[in-house]
Amino acid sequence: MKIVVDAMGGDHAPEAIVEGAVLAAREYDTKIILTGLSEQIQTELDKHDPDHLLPIEIVHADEVVEMHDSPGKVLRSKRKSSMKIGLDLVKQGEGVAFVSAGNTGAVLAYSTVILRPVKGVDRPAIAIQLPTLKGTSILLDAGANVDCKTNQLFQFGIMGHVFAEYILEKENPSVGLLSIGEEDGKGNEIVKETFQMLKKSHINFIGNIEGKEVYRGNADVIVCDGFTGNVALKISESLAEMIGTNLKLMFQSTWLSKLGYLFLKPQLVQFKKKVDHSETGGAPLLGVNGVVIIAHGSSSPKAIKNAINRAYELREKNIIDHIKQDIELNLSDVENSKGTIWKQIKSIAFGSEGAEQKGEEIPPTPDSKPNET
Amino acid sequence: MKIVVDAMGGDHAPEAIVEGAVLAAREYDTKIILTGLSEQIQTELDKHDPDHLLPIEIVHADEVVEMHDSPGKVLRSKRKSSMKIGLDLVKQGEGVAFVSAGNTGAVLAYSTVILRPVKGVDRPAIAIQLPTLKGTSILLDAGANVDCKTNQLFQFGIMGHVFAEYILEKENPSVGLLSIGEEDGKGNEIVKETFQMLKKSHINFIGNIEGKEVYRGNADVIVCDGFTGNVALKISESLAEMIGTNLKLMFQSTWLSKLGYLFLKPQLVQFKKKVDHSETGGAPLLGVNGVVIIAHGSSSPKAIKNAINRAYELREKNIIDHIKQDIELNLSDVENSKGTIWKQIKSIAFGSEGAEQKGEEIPPTPDSKPNET
Repeated sequence: MKIVVDAMGGDHAPEAIVEGAVLAAREYDTKIILTGLSEQIQTELDKHDPDHLLPIEIVHADEVVEMHDSPGKVLRSKRKSSMKIGLDLVKQGEGVAFVSAGNTGAVLAYSTVILRPVKGVDRPAIAIQLPTLKGTSILLDAGANVDCKTNQLFQFGIMGHVFAEYILEKENPSVGLLSIGEEDGKGNEIVKETFQMLKKSHINFIGNIEGKEVYRGNADVIVCDGFTGNVALKISESLAEMIGTNLKLMFQSTWLSKLGYLFLKPQLVQFKKKVDHSETGGAPLLGVNGVVIIAHGSSSPKAIKNAINRAYELREKNIIDHIKQDIELNLSDVENSKGTIWKQIKSIAFGSEGAEQKGEEIPPTPDSKPNET
Repeated sequence: MKIVVDAMGGDHAPEAIVEGAVLAAREYDTKIILTGLSEQIQTELDKHDPDHLLPIEIVHADEVVEMHDSPGKVLRSKRKSSMKIGLDLVKQGEGVAFVSAGNTGAVLAYSTVILRPVKGVDRPAIAIQLPTLKGTSILLDAGANVDCKTNQLFQFGIMGHVFAEYILEKENPSVGLLSIGEEDGKGNEIVKETFQMLKKSHINFIGNIEGKEVYRGNADVIVCDGFTGNVALKISESLAEMIGTNLKLMFQSTWLSKLGYLFLKPQLVQFKKKVDHSETGGAPLLGVNGVVIIAHGSSSPKAIKNAINRAYELREKNIIDHIKQDIELNLSDVENSKGTIWKQIKSIAFGSEGAEQKGEEIPPTPDSKPNET
């Protein structure tokens, strides 16, 4: 089982990426393929593993996707990039998972085009782990899809449920829909429609949850569109930064407060570790036919090591197969309940017996728009 | 100048509201009208002002809007509520501003129906002050409008600019559009269209800002739809709560950390004051013909006092007139630039000279859809 790692992606590539791969290979005995400019990678690798003892291979790729490249441009013109070649290796079965700290839009575009979405999934979603008062929750979509349809949010719910069950190992994980009020009718149009769909699914849907509930950890899975999810996460980062800066100023303001800081340091270090994104090891892209982990652009070697480990774990636990099964199960649930609704309409219109006899007068079930039934 | 206060709105009504009114009347010599169940209000008032020396009147209202009442139901059935009667007093000129800590949806619905939106404003927006690393910014809409059109976001930008200029007293305040990337083309469809409109306005539009920028304070005004705004604010509350809880646990974990806490206490109290919503005194509802302040449901007497003071200030500084002027100015800007675009189309189609002559063949400027030009 080899994990393919894009050695050229991220703010500190290839140094931090190669070092992260070395750490992973040492700590977990993971086999790794690094893709990218082979000379540069070899130079970095030689620093850590001069005798080539670690199970790390290099596959050369001529081109590098830059952080500012538009995904469209990358798809059209960078056919020899470390990302493209890395994902091709996963597609061909050479590797079992792909890790990149590079341009998120490009990873998303390549993954969708090369690995293709799982049957029944319209678009993959980025899932982010959040530290909460009760432990860990995941939020999806964190930014892959800005304008989402009802079907997509529904699929995010199913995929998030699978992730929480098999990877976070939560029993019957709870799924909440991020909205602006807890009551059934609250939210924008898409949220209201998704609410009705999730209510009919077999997962443990606990209804709408408000922003103020997120870090309390009452929902194991938080479903939202990628625009809202991205804003929610980044504003959290921003607030944490402001509080951190203010705490630092506080600690430095008097000699007494400096002493106070020293006394609190062990606890502060522990808390920082709890909320540090590099500990969780990147965000999985859920919904394509293959394990893909998107690491933070500023990933340290430790963050890359954890991302590789996370990729290995997702593959070990067969996350893709579980997603396929649950999507299929829930789609058939929705299909069946659609049938039920149409049967109800028929029976209202023609009486309970007449439904089948006059079936030809009823418009067909609109398969392409299950959210409208 | 009398400020009308809904004595029955909020989790601690009427006690906290009456006490807040008493504090405001004492501290600022503000004249106040309290609306609601007169006996209850009088009982509370007598506790603080037994000799009736303060400039506080009571206007009786038979009905109370409950926190869980739907705005539609309230509009239809609670015609004698403290909110309705309070806003009627403002409409009739008996009072100059209205303050309520009650059901936000109902305040919004009543204000829109009774006071009517300012000409050129489709819907009012709730503006919330945020503490930032640089001081204070405002974010709007914080939840009044879940599904927003481009025009509305544009109007929020203008109104926020006015608020920042006249109330926060910022010179040439900067206005940012909340999105998922700083570049021009980033965001959902509505954001992309709004970007183009704000670019043409006369205000200091600094483009998209990401969630991570919000608490850095680089934009004085942050524009977003009410769904995103509500989620962003409530998730901030949630994160602050989680960090606060963790800090408390930290402080209590060892005798050394307890000592550390004692040394830091003065700074912590100061920081808490900086981010405490009761200090800012409620959120103005911008865009109706009258000053309306929505206070937090859990408002303390101090928060109510600050909300009354804020209402007074908005009236003193003629915020409504400034909004009217700036909305008019910017709408004509957009109209003019629309004209320019049509002139360009004409000149491309018929040559620079032919435009006027063949004017009748050109479709009329679509007034109802300025966002599409």
